Amino acid sequence: MDFDLKTYLDGKNRKINQALEKLLPQKSLRIVMAMRHSLMAGGKRLRPVLCLAAADTVCGNSANALPAACAIEMIHTYSLIHDDLPAMDDDNLRRGAPTCHVAFDEASAILAGDGLLTLAFEILSSAENLSPARNLSSSGLKNPDKAIDILKIINRLSRAAGYENMIEGQMQDIASEGVLLDVDQLEKLHALKTGAMISASVYAGAVMGRASDEQISHLEEYAYNIGLAFQVADDILNVEGDPEIMGKAAGTDNDRGKNTYPALLGLKESKAEAVKLVDRAIKSLEIFDKEPASIKSGPLCAIAKYIIERKL
Amino acid sequence: MDFDLKTYLDGKNRKINQALEKLLPQKSLRIVMAMRHSLMAGGKRLRPVLCLAAADTVCGNSANALPAACAIEMIHTYSLIHDDLPAMDDDNLRRGAPTCHVAFDEASAILAGDGLLTLAFEILSSAENLSPARNLSSSGLKNPDKAIDILKIINRLSRAAGYENMIEGQMQDIASEGVLLDVDQLEKLHALKTGAMISASVYAGAVMGRASDEQISHLEEYAYNIGLAFQVADDILNVEGDPEIMGKAAGTDNDRGKNTYPALLGLKESKAEAVKLVDRAIKSLEIFDKEPASIKSGPLCAIAKYIIERKL
Repeated sequence: MDFDLKTYLDGKNRKINQALEKLLPQKSLRIVMAMRHSLMAGGKRLRPVLCLAAADTVCGNSANALPAACAIEMIHTYSLIHDDLPAMDDDNLRRGAPTCHVAFDEASAILAGDGLLTLAFEILSSAENLSPARNLSSSGLKNPDKAIDILKIINRLSRAAGYENMIEGQMQDIASEGVLLDVDQLEKLHALKTGAMISASVYAGAVMGRASDEQISHLEEYAYNIGLAFQVADDILNVEGDPEIMGKAAGTDNDRGKNTYPALLGLKESKAEAVKLVDRAIKSLEIFDKEPASIKSGPLCAIAKYIIERKL
Repeated sequence: MDFDLKTYLDGKNRKINQALEKLLPQKSLRIVMAMRHSLMAGGKRLRPVLCLAAADTVCGNSANALPAACAIEMIHTYSLIHDDLPAMDDDNLRRGAPTCHVAFDEASAILAGDGLLTLAFEILSSAENLSPARNLSSSGLKNPDKAIDILKIINRLSRAAGYENMIEGQMQDIASEGVLLDVDQLEKLHALKTGAMISASVYAGAVMGRASDEQISHLEEYAYNIGLAFQVADDILNVEGDPEIMGKAAGTDNDRGKNTYPALLGLKESKAEAVKLVDRAIKSLEIFDKEPASIKSGPLCAIAKYIIERKL
């Protein structure tokens, strides 16, 4: 029987949204409203789901990884708010709603992004994250060991989101509008801009699930390939997608002279590329299926397939 | 004999600048140039010096606190870059040089701020920060304990820099331009905007120096008072200061309808208030001078006095 991805994603999304609600509750403060406007606007929650799925894959339980998953979604949302600003991509619509600077104002949007980025590290370093999850066996982690694991995750996430990866990716993305890249350059751009954070999300879940080094290395191989596949699929959707389902206009990349896979490879080749990347990602999961009838790699496998089938 | 503050500050500043140079070395990447433009432009380095001085005060050594001190200066610099943006205070000059968005462009300045904030957490969580400083006795820290201390510092700094403190302070600062506050409201605004980070800087140094809870509580009392004194003195300097020495224009607060102590209390009362705050700060250091002829609280004491005597 196939893995039921929809039920899995719905369950994880509910958990993530409930946890985010607790971590940043409604308040009548303008800064909180601006942060929540973007954070609670829905979205695919791809990165936190990958974080939880990686934990499930290595230890069958993702409760321990939930704070990290929420922190990751906050970092992602901050990056969207800042990327949408007039000084950058100048986007008015995101996740089917006005972007943060449109709904509030530019100063509030800059500070809301800053607030989400900072809150991510507050959550990662909180005492609640350090104490073992209630539904893990008490014979589990000793806090000091967990403290070192959490520091590793903070370090990895800050490098992935930092000036050598995600931020440099955004710099290059802005600089390359209207400049023709080749496929290798485009791949490198995506590795910086989105790939590093997707890998770090999987890494965070794996470490919270106490993965071995070998398991981590296979999961990173997986993450690299689906990160890229996701970007190729995104470019395809921007050409072919239904604006009503996506909550944003189609064809915008082309209008702006953005470098995309369809523009460089054509639509058919781009689709073949996405399939190839997903196949590679799934292959790197084989290590988790040594035991017969194991479904441990089920969620990651299903997510990989979903990436090229999605409409949103 | 009086404590020689100038030699102490020069020594600490040299150490901080050398460490920052190593943590963010020159590169031909535009994002690095923008980050370094603001980070290496000098400035008083008040927060990192307070961090190191707190460590010196509790254990006579601040080598262990140097990475945290650098991270704190990065967070401070990020906040200046974003505050200076056209959408916020729209300042062209900072630390005697063009502000980041003037020297580069708005997108680069937003991302440079993001990069410095993120790099701060990368440094705090790095393996180098976790390993004991070479010049501490090897009988000192066990790494797992130090990991928990570092998580506490990350948590404290992210809360101080976050949406409930520094960021909310900036929101309120923007909202209150041209609105008349009373002295209590102004004090609360400063407690949010600068006080929380100054306290957190002292806290970070104290924890890295392995302070007791009692010591920490006295140091926080100290930090609260000098944080406020610093702000009062800053307002006074904005009226009386020499633009050549300060590297920025004088009288700008008044032109903008900013709420300041001189505007609310008058210049004479403001100076008396600053003196009162500094006296209070110094009093809270008495705990460190129980042993006769101790000079342990020397640097913090001297910094407190310096705050109301400075010209810059």
